[in-house]
Amino acid sequence: MEYYFPRALRQLISEFSKLPSIGEKSALRLAYSVISKDKDNALKLAKSLVRVVEEVEFCETCFFLSESDTCIFCKDPKRTEEIICVVEKPMDVIAIERTGEFRGLYHVLHGVWAPMRGVGPEDIKLKELKLRALKEEVKEIIIATSPTVEGDATALYIQDTIKDIESVKCTRLAQGVPKGGDLEYLDDLTLGKALSGRLSM
Amino acid sequence: MEYYFPRALRQLISEFSKLPSIGEKSALRLAYSVISKDKDNALKLAKSLVRVVEEVEFCETCFFLSESDTCIFCKDPKRTEEIICVVEKPMDVIAIERTGEFRGLYHVLHGVWAPMRGVGPEDIKLKELKLRALKEEVKEIIIATSPTVEGDATALYIQDTIKDIESVKCTRLAQGVPKGGDLEYLDDLTLGKALSGRLSM
Repeated sequence: MEYYFPRALRQLISEFSKLPSIGEKSALRLAYSVISKDKDNALKLAKSLVRVVEEVEFCETCFFLSESDTCIFCKDPKRTEEIICVVEKPMDVIAIERTGEFRGLYHVLHGVWAPMRGVGPEDIKLKELKLRALKEEVKEIIIATSPTVEGDATALYIQDTIKDIESVKCTRLAQGVPKGGDLEYLDDLTLGKALSGRLSM
Repeated sequence: MEYYFPRALRQLISEFSKLPSIGEKSALRLAYSVISKDKDNALKLAKSLVRVVEEVEFCETCFFLSESDTCIFCKDPKRTEEIICVVEKPMDVIAIERTGEFRGLYHVLHGVWAPMRGVGPEDIKLKELKLRALKEEVKEIIIATSPTVEGDATALYIQDTIKDIESVKCTRLAQGVPKGGDLEYLDDLTLGKALSGRLSM
């Protein structure tokens, strides 16, 4: 179908469609927008891409995104080193920061243990987490992976990995009824979790 | 929310979100994919963008996409110059080519007459269409704008523009029941058009 397009455009469509959740139709629309109006923006996007590839790296300690070896959180002297919150991806860090309830450090796994998709424990930052947990200042590790099958499996794997380190308590985000949710429409698993994890008032 | 991200990444997110139908959340996901795995692909995308901006232009005759002044259709000696099919955008050319039923030339308007959105007749390639229609070899102009309010208005405007050129017949794509469609679920307007435009068998 793209046979009639100039080669440079066909290549751009193919590059766009390699991005996550961009299909061929969307890639076509994006590429067309580049030619039809956004030539200036297209060049700016190209520059930004190169700049990000060159400048953005992972924090050497927690693997959050950073312009230097140490990220904005690990650099902050006001945050306690006693608690490490383990998340799947950088966006989860932002979500937790937004609550304003956490003042510890983070550890970004960059994935979950997903044997069905061929992702093993060595493909995510688990070894590095264990090394951090061995430091004497660490008192608690909060596992904040998603409450999915893979997220739960990863949580269990982490717990298993650090259970020998006696100084470290391992916790997991509470699961239950979401704020504003309607019991009638809640799935059975979540409601079951909310029941079994009920708290005294 | 992006305050915690490196500046280069924030800029990339903002550039991505300028693309059509990419919101802030999608832009964030795209930017993250660039850092987390596709560094090589990101550089290729950057290069493609620059190449498209530099190499792809519009055909000087029909305004389809081309690497040179004349596009693949206008260059083809096997296509008849007697019929010109007027479409809104390059993708519509591809759609018509796929039918295999058209062997004439095209004219891409790059938009429709949309006064409500501030797009006037001078913002689309209408003047150029009239100039083409004046050539003596042209016998028919098929208006293949979309059957929307704006597409219909544009069609009427084109008809009005070229009605004085006596050698040129002006036609419009037939409107009616789509192949495989169920009458029960068809909208009234389409069914009405199919009735009033009925053909003898």
